[in-house]
Amino acid sequence: MLTLYYAPGTCALASLIALEESGLAFEVRKISLRDGEQRSPDYLKINPKGRVPALVTDYGVLTETPAILTYIAQSAPAAKLAPLDDAFEFARLQSFNSYICSTVHVNHAHRPRGSRWADEPAAIEAMKAKVPQNMADCFTLIEQTMFKGPWVMGEAYSLADPYLFVMTDWLPSDGVDPARFEKASDHHARMLLRPAVQRALAYDRA
Amino acid sequence: MLTLYYAPGTCALASLIALEESGLAFEVRKISLRDGEQRSPDYLKINPKGRVPALVTDYGVLTETPAILTYIAQSAPAAKLAPLDDAFEFARLQSFNSYICSTVHVNHAHRPRGSRWADEPAAIEAMKAKVPQNMADCFTLIEQTMFKGPWVMGEAYSLADPYLFVMTDWLPSDGVDPARFEKASDHHARMLLRPAVQRALAYDRA
Ligand SMILES: N[C@@H](CCC(=O)N[C@@H](CS)C(=O)NCC(=O)O)C(=O)O
Ligand SMILES: N[C@@H](CCC(=O)N[C@@H](CS)C(=O)NCC(=O)O)C(=O)O
Repeated sequence: MLTLYYAPGTCALASLIALEESGLAFEVRKISLRDGEQRSPDYLKINPKGRVPALVTDYGVLTETPAILTYIAQSAPAAKLAPLDDAFEFARLQSFNSYICSTVHVNHAHRPRGSRWADEPAAIEAMKAKVPQNMADCFTLIEQTMFKGPWVMGEAYSLADPYLFVMTDWLPSDGVDPARFEKASDHHARMLLRPAVQRALAYDRA
Repeated sequence: MLTLYYAPGTCALASLIALEESGLAFEVRKISLRDGEQRSPDYLKINPKGRVPALVTDYGVLTETPAILTYIAQSAPAAKLAPLDDAFEFARLQSFNSYICSTVHVNHAHRPRGSRWADEPAAIEAMKAKVPQNMADCFTLIEQTMFKGPWVMGEAYSLADPYLFVMTDWLPSDGVDPARFEKASDHHARMLLRPAVQRALAYDRA
């Protein structure tokens, strides 16, 4: 059995969509970030990082979105959520997801979570001010050099798609008009048509 | 043939060590960050992100350290640099490398590269001030919850080891005494005994 520790509106949505796409049996437990539940002693026993997502498996707990996405793809090969038989294509997927995790998500986090990197209120404001530009730069690079179309990796849908979807979903709150990014907006709209995405969003917004 | 685009003292050292461990044929090209070569038109054709490392393969260019490390491990299965036959152990490796990439490396980057996230000099100074604490927090978490010993993943050496090695190597410049972290310091010392690490460092420092 798989249990996903989840918080609405977070990057954990990518893992939830992946589970919905996979056909695997799973359950979801909601953590309230507003109440600081991610730092409760009980949750820190599951994920000592105090973050979501965390995926509890029969073998142990996994954290970090790119690792969780790959694990889901490998656990459900019939769902064809990653190019598991082609080392280079698999590495391309890892590369995209690693870029989202280490650069796009991190740039976004400088808006709600600047206090991770500086204590002074003025510095935290200065970080917020740069978020729209940094997010727009990331999406320009994604559209010009990474996004193959119709899906991120090309003809085949993969677990790069829910991860990009979540980042696109964050753009308005990050001060970026998604309409500036035609490929990402179109991708976002097509993602919304997928039943797995609809189920995940229904849970997220419930 | 594999060609690694490299800059001394950077996270690209993890990929160079991995190549040295792998037994694969490769060459290395040095990029001078001091001269801004990572933003030259020629280099941007190879890696539009303007960063190192980039690995040129027969199939295309790969960027992002975790993806490059996994690709090297999969291209040289005999070197046993990753638990390729166990999806959960493989995911644990991905999780560790993703944490280094998205959190430890990013925390470090707030010292030399604060201008990525804010323009005001005072904000950049405020970020620098928090780097020692953030790096120490990361190493505390790594030692308490991730590092199995004798290698990161346990009995088997893997490509989590060169990546951790590079982060430990950065601690003094980040204002953290590595001696505070017994497991990481001991790991660093044992890494220095490996011929592959010695060859990579000789190249890095040449
Ligand atoms: N690198 C991690 C990042 C996880 C992360 O930062 N999650 C955020 C939500 S998007 C979180 O739990 N924040 C709560 C907090 O910082 O207290 C991943 O990709 O899974
Ligand atoms: N997420 C990337 C980060 C790559 C990165 O930031 N590299 C740094 C060196 S450690 C760089 O090239 N910096 C040059 C610059 O920022 O201009 C990875 O893991 O490969």
